Amino acid sequence: MTNTQQSPSNSNSNDNLRYERGLARLREIDGEGGIKVVESLADIAPDFARLVIEFPFGDIYSRPGLDLRSREIAVVAALTAMGNAAPQLKVHIQGALNVGVTRTEIVETIMQMAVYAGFPAALNGLTAAREVFAHAGVATPAAGRAAATVAATVTATA
Amino acid sequence: MTNTQQSPSNSNSNDNLRYERGLARLREIDGEGGIKVVESLADIAPDFARLVIEFPFGDIYSRPGLDLRSREIAVVAALTAMGNAAPQLKVHIQGALNVGVTRTEIVETIMQMAVYAGFPAALNGLTAAREVFAHAGVATPAAGRAAATVAATVTATA
Amino acid sequence: MTNTQQSPSNSNSNDNLRYERGLARLREIDGEGGIKVVESLADIAPDFARLVIEFPFGDIYSRPGLDLRSREIAVVAALTAMGNAAPQLKVHIQGALNVGVTRTEIVETIMQMAVYAGFPAALNGLTAAREVFAHAGVATPAAGRAAATVAATVTATA
Amino acid sequence: MTNTQQSPSNSNSNDNLRYERGLARLREIDGEGGIKVVESLADIAPDFARLVIEFPFGDIYSRPGLDLRSREIAVVAALTAMGNAAPQLKVHIQGALNVGVTRTEIVETIMQMAVYAGFPAALNGLTAAREVFAHAGVATPAAGRAAATVAATVTATA
Amino acid sequence: MTNTQQSPSNSNSNDNLRYERGLARLREIDGEGGIKVVESLADIAPDFARLVIEFPFGDIYSRPGLDLRSREIAVVAALTAMGNAAPQLKVHIQGALNVGVTRTEIVETIMQMAVYAGFPAALNGLTAAREVFAHAGVATPAAGRAAATVAATVTATA
Amino acid sequence: MTNTQQSPSNSNSNDNLRYERGLARLREIDGEGGIKVVESLADIAPDFARLVIEFPFGDIYSRPGLDLRSREIAVVAALTAMGNAAPQLKVHIQGALNVGVTRTEIVETIMQMAVYAGFPAALNGLTAAREVFAHAGVATPAAGRAAATVAATVTATA
Repeated sequence: MTNTQQSPSNSNSNDNLRYERGLARLREIDGEGGIKVVESLADIAPDFARLVIEFPFGDIYSRPGLDLRSREIAVVAALTAMGNAAPQLKVHIQGALNVGVTRTEIVETIMQMAVYAGFPAALNGLTAAREVFAHAGVATPAAGRAAATVAATVTATA
Repeated sequence: MTNTQQSPSNSNSNDNLRYERGLARLREIDGEGGIKVVESLADIAPDFARLVIEFPFGDIYSRPGLDLRSREIAVVAALTAMGNAAPQLKVHIQGALNVGVTRTEIVETIMQMAVYAGFPAALNGLTAAREVFAHAGVATPAAGRAAATVAATVTATA
Repeated sequence: MTNTQQSPSNSNSNDNLRYERGLARLREIDGEGGIKVVESLADIAPDFARLVIEFPFGDIYSRPGLDLRSREIAVVAALTAMGNAAPQLKVHIQGALNVGVTRTEIVETIMQMAVYAGFPAALNGLTAAREVFAHAGVATPAAGRAAATVAATVTATA
Repeated sequence: MTNTQQSPSNSNSNDNLRYERGLARLREIDGEGGIKVVESLADIAPDFARLVIEFPFGDIYSRPGLDLRSREIAVVAALTAMGNAAPQLKVHIQGALNVGVTRTEIVETIMQMAVYAGFPAALNGLTAAREVFAHAGVATPAAGRAAATVAATVTATA
Repeated sequence: MTNTQQSPSNSNSNDNLRYERGLARLREIDGEGGIKVVESLADIAPDFARLVIEFPFGDIYSRPGLDLRSREIAVVAALTAMGNAAPQLKVHIQGALNVGVTRTEIVETIMQMAVYAGFPAALNGLTAAREVFAHAGVATPAAGRAAATVAATVTATA
Repeated sequence: MTNTQQSPSNSNSNDNLRYERGLARLREIDGEGGIKVVESLADIAPDFARLVIEFPFGDIYSRPGLDLRSREIAVVAALTAMGNAAPQLKVHIQGALNVGVTRTEIVETIMQMAVYAGFPAALNGLTAAREVFAHAGVATPAAGRAAATVAATVTATA
């Protein structure tokens, strides 16, 4: 791989190491969703595509000291709380699943944000999670049963 | 109504009181829009559906000390200013209408947020209000006339 | 009063009307706290001092369609929820008191923001209210009794 | 042009001056996008349409002391960083182009916000820029070539 | 313990269970810092003191499905990213230490927020962590050595 | 200068180039204030000190395509609008002065944020500017005269 034309200021093997380390990390965590985000930058800000790979993934996510599961829980919490980055929240909900965070843990993380950023932030986070989970596969049977119970309860109380 | 399977930690009559008091309050304020929000949680986070009813509506909105009209004005102001919770803002603009806040009062509340959160927040709040008002019924004649005048003015000045 | 040197682009009687109407409104709502804010701008951005009087107070707060009590409840709610404007929140908690909002109503408005912007926003809003209330006069007897009860409870449970 | 019916509190020649000065500034900066925003207010908050023209454009953008190019760079930076005002960000990206800010300068401004408001804010800002640029005309040849290189790199590394 | 006078709407054993469960959880996580926050509410909003214990701690933190270490990492991430709740961030950095999150993990969580909320948010989060760590005890030897190296590097390069 | 012990993952000449380029840029823009921020990280997060130099300053501020004056105007605008990063805003107001932005341009940039992020954000930005200007030297005579006029006006109207 040659990276030279695209990033003239990053011309030697060490930056290539950061780039390749970051790209591998991006694939591991965010999978195809992450790659699509980077590719989508090619027409408008190609250098930013490189920086996204080098700094967040090559520098930060490649650090020891905090496991990937905790890192993804931290991101899901932060983006839910900030409430203004729905596309990135979805990418990282999928990323959390990819590194082994369970659906229950993701839902609990988002619910907890009601305490710190308010119920609308948590509700919109759950909407994002529903979309990602629906795309990722079947609902858990337990959730299905509970859903039926809630629906029945709400209707019965009306 | 039995609530037991769905919320094992809320097993006796007192929590059922909070839940039922909250559900009644939710219906009174947000009407069908509020019920839909809660029902939509059933498949992803059924316990959160219960918590939405118990804490905001059972605990907070059921408190004396501030009338419901003022509570809805406060929410419309806050969600307009925060600018990252459009679905909830719409539910509460409808909620404000439901408890007797007039369209004029809602529009004034949102306009005032231009001072505290900037013009974009107020503009996006007015967009939300337009959608709710359009769904809720006819425009006021006065607004219709004024709209015609503004359109004419802007065109004439071009 | 001549306003000419200070605001050359606002040279006739109509803008003076906006300015004087705004200054009167500012005094009515925010009292000395508001005047101090404006005066503090004189050394750094004197035109902004004029704009603060003309637009928020001369244009917005002078509009009919929403009573001053509701306007101050809206501002206290929004600034509590935004959480990044403590000095202005304090000025408007005092402003709310000035136009007849009760301490209980202010506290309820801030507490309600826990639902929409999270508990930290509400806690910091209550801290601001405590400072303003302490400066404004005595605590309510009811709050005093309740405080003693809570303190006793927390200690007893330890 | 008579402005009287629409804005009874602004009845004389001086406020008409602010309004006309603001309207000219709005056309110069935001072009048709800005006019559409104002016209869209006519049915819901016609007075706000007037205030948008008078305060931001008649008062602020008409001030000396900061050139229009810098003002538009400042707005693109701020709205990118806030991340909750996509429609207004697009209007001002077009506005920046209208007053002579280049595409490269706009992209650099948005990329820089990754440092101050995070990568999601910058990514969403770039998405807004892509939409505006696509509507405004052809992509720059340089960007096109770089895009091809990035796409090839990402694919090759997979 | 009788809780009756203070919270008349919470008059039976079940709400006392939520309150006591929440108070135990608050002590476990936040320790004395959390208790002080609650006690400080006694004079201004005694009912909010009860709600802080019942909802965040009695309802949310008492849920299974996400371990306490992950919950504290989520809160430290979110409050760092939001950037407007320094007092609560400090309480939860201490809380994270209390439930077994290491200093390194806390620092990594905060550093990671530079990616999602910008470098200022991360810098201010690190400032909060420094204050909490200084109060909690000695610095790690590794950090001390690294600090000396950085200081030397910066000076040498000047 | 050897950088090896402190940043093992950055072991060759190219990363040293980014670091040294970034450190030079940091000195040029933020001066001693910037260096102090970096040094203050040494005890808590020494690697973050390196990353602050490498990414924002080595990668972003070293890019062509946007002049430093425009970059500093963009940062002052963004941090004023976000309203939750006062220490960094002050560093960058000084930075703007350092690269040739005038006091008037800084004040105009901050005032303009009243339109996009509300008057409190602009007021708090002006407070930050006042502190930086006071530390940096004498007030401009023009501002002094205007201040006297405003003070007189406010008093006379009382």
